[in-house]
Amino acid sequence: MRKLNYAVLGAGNGGQCVSAYLKLRGYQVSLYDRYEHVIEPIKTRGGIALKGVSLNGFAKIDIITTDLKEAVENADVILVVLPAFAHEYIAENLSSILHNDQVIVLCPGSTGGALEFRRVLNDKKCNCSIKLAETNSLFYASRIDASGTAVIGGVKEVMPIAALPSSDVDEIIDIMHEAYPQLVKEENVLTSDMSNMNAVVHPLPVILNTGWIEATGGSFKYYYDGITPTIGNLVEKTDTERMEICRALGIKVKSIKDSMYTYYKAQGDSLCKMFKNISAYEIVNAPEKVESRLLTEDVPMGLVPMTELAKLVNVKTPIMDMTIDLASTLLNRDFRSNGRTLEKLGISGMDRESLLKYIK
Amino acid sequence: MRKLNYAVLGAGNGGQCVSAYLKLRGYQVSLYDRYEHVIEPIKTRGGIALKGVSLNGFAKIDIITTDLKEAVENADVILVVLPAFAHEYIAENLSSILHNDQVIVLCPGSTGGALEFRRVLNDKKCNCSIKLAETNSLFYASRIDASGTAVIGGVKEVMPIAALPSSDVDEIIDIMHEAYPQLVKEENVLTSDMSNMNAVVHPLPVILNTGWIEATGGSFKYYYDGITPTIGNLVEKTDTERMEICRALGIKVKSIKDSMYTYYKAQGDSLCKMFKNISAYEIVNAPEKVESRLLTEDVPMGLVPMTELAKLVNVKTPIMDMTIDLASTLLNRDFRSNGRTLEKLGISGMDRESLLKYIK
Repeated sequence: MRKLNYAVLGAGNGGQCVSAYLKLRGYQVSLYDRYEHVIEPIKTRGGIALKGVSLNGFAKIDIITTDLKEAVENADVILVVLPAFAHEYIAENLSSILHNDQVIVLCPGSTGGALEFRRVLNDKKCNCSIKLAETNSLFYASRIDASGTAVIGGVKEVMPIAALPSSDVDEIIDIMHEAYPQLVKEENVLTSDMSNMNAVVHPLPVILNTGWIEATGGSFKYYYDGITPTIGNLVEKTDTERMEICRALGIKVKSIKDSMYTYYKAQGDSLCKMFKNISAYEIVNAPEKVESRLLTEDVPMGLVPMTELAKLVNVKTPIMDMTIDLASTLLNRDFRSNGRTLEKLGISGMDRESLLKYIK
Repeated sequence: MRKLNYAVLGAGNGGQCVSAYLKLRGYQVSLYDRYEHVIEPIKTRGGIALKGVSLNGFAKIDIITTDLKEAVENADVILVVLPAFAHEYIAENLSSILHNDQVIVLCPGSTGGALEFRRVLNDKKCNCSIKLAETNSLFYASRIDASGTAVIGGVKEVMPIAALPSSDVDEIIDIMHEAYPQLVKEENVLTSDMSNMNAVVHPLPVILNTGWIEATGGSFKYYYDGITPTIGNLVEKTDTERMEICRALGIKVKSIKDSMYTYYKAQGDSLCKMFKNISAYEIVNAPEKVESRLLTEDVPMGLVPMTELAKLVNVKTPIMDMTIDLASTLLNRDFRSNGRTLEKLGISGMDRESLLKYIK
């Protein structure tokens, strides 16, 4: 069987690690980024040096380009390793150059990634029969070191993936299994979308640490110091709203406390205490600025679509709403109307039944 | 002319300084506090040692009591030096024991103190012709030192006072002029109520410093460190809402930046910079806990009545509303319904014209 051809869209930490890993595993790999200044140094080196807990070596990437068509035209699988706010742009630009049977995976989709992606393709009258999926986190904890080497610090052992429609998921896992055996299927994109814990643990705690972040450039530990008892308590309340939405949608998702126990065996009767018992969180620093992806991504691509799904099933989300408003006021933007509304997700006007049918 | 008899209600820092100052100035003084544990040590000492920038000496207080009637029965002037949330209780308990011509001054009234006080007296069918006024801050910056000595660190050089009805103000200033020559008249209680700057500089900044306060026990400087550029910017936006309410009410009040310039000659193009140029603010520390009077008083007795007045004149106050909601969520209380609503202020159902007539 011929080896698959992967296109990786996005050449940040995550995209570089993914490309290098896939290349070292023997696949054809093309790496795309929209920005010349991101692509140029990688092109100059001819590839990516990878080290860490996964594979080690120099990965000579086959195609390194800012030309989206060049990157994807021969690809079997297109991995979108970009912030969620870039998904719409990528979908628009892919819509005219995709061909049948290509697989597109958003790594990750945040909340509503696949729904938005599908809506854009429909709007653009893209009639190819592509397969579309989203994960709910990155494959790796990674960074690029000073020498430009991509370093994988950790690999997720289990990576849930959801397809839209969900009936495609087995086939997609099958195709990608050789490269990523950790993929396991989520029931549907809603399950994946509502599992986006970043929406719960990032925006409100960042807001309630505005002074500290700004006065010190974020020189404190995000979870250990920044999630104080009062803040932890509010995160739990936000999570209760998330659980209510899931209940009303009829989908099953773990609460944050259950997740922390399942993934990290974290002990403690409050979230504040549980976080302090997760050693992986010791190294997580606060963002250097309030205007960070913890707000600019997790509010419009996390909280906003969650509150929109809440509206669809008549659930009230006062704390999430307040957080969106406050983030918008703080950063002087309208996260709500720039975020993933029901309209942007292509599901406005649907009720629960028609939504579940649409994603099936 | 016989020397006046003053009753001071509240034996915290402020009340102790006021009592000792008045006694050392030769007035008859009775000091009341609701709590035995507050009154007891003062009673044991027989009075209050005062030092600092005002008068120095031991003030033998004439009456030191937890009996409100005993404290006020011979008083010409009753100074209420208590947190604003105690005003309602005091008004209820005074309603049956006041007599004609007594002067009551709330020091300070926060927002709506005199209105609420008058409403309670009316509800209780108190028919005495008392005179009622409120200041908008304490007379002194003060503390009680380790030995129990009251220390006055600073005296306000100008102290605006507003009466309800405002026509009483000249007479009240006249009566108190000998003791407090710094009193100057405010046009009416609305001017005084809307000048409550604490409502603007306390709640939102405390909320946006929740993590820092809770993680460090408030070991940073409130204004110097805690009012960062983003937070200062939001304080300015909150102040813009306050100015809008004043404009709609037809009253004139200084903006916070104008006040900082007038009182402290503070320079700077942003509030964040201005605060750092006010040397008096260098010693102001953050509260030790999030649950402090900066929220528990300034939200229900500051922001809430401001937003209620805003409703009366159809002004939108999204940032103030958000702050009230967030404070309520943070501390798990309903500040809005426990705060000074139009109903509690005795002005519900009024429009701007009838309100201005009522307070005149």
